[in-house]
Amino acid sequence: SPLSRNIRCRCIKSHDVVPNVKFLQKLEVIPESSSCPRTEIIATMKRTQEQRCLNPNSKQIQDLLKLINKKRPKETSNQK
Amino acid sequence: SPLSRNIRCRCIKSHDVVPNVKFLQKLEVIPESSSCPRTEIIATMKRTQEQRCLNPNSKQIQDLLKLINKKRPKETSNQK
Repeated sequence: SPLSRNIRCRCIKSHDVVPNVKFLQKLEVIPESSSCPRTEIIATMKRTQEQRCLNPNSKQIQDLLKLINKKRPKETSNQK
Repeated sequence: SPLSRNIRCRCIKSHDVVPNVKFLQKLEVIPESSSCPRTEIIATMKRTQEQRCLNPNSKQIQDLLKLINKKRPKETSNQK
């Protein structure tokens, strides 16, 4: 049956509220694939190592990714 | 000495060329921290599990992240 397809999404539900970048250890972005038909974004928190799924449709996510890219130290910005 | 600080960046050098999203298993975004003074972006390839560091200053990265966010299936786009 269609339900027997091996769907292995990592997120069941996702948060709309994006954590402050200061508390973020990493952000994993997993594109849609045959394993899971949706993009998944998983935040890992610094101290607790807690993993939290974030809603990829949230505007806040796009803003967070922009913020991360803009925070670059001058000494490495033109490094080869 | 300053050099004895425990710097543990995961990337030594980074690629400017961003892989096609089809071949990408995941993308890890690691904000700058006390362990590493720069943002690191690590792509893991689907078949080979090869990990490749990408240049966060590359315009292609921002475009890739936008593309990933735009590719959302209709059936889940308004799901709660």
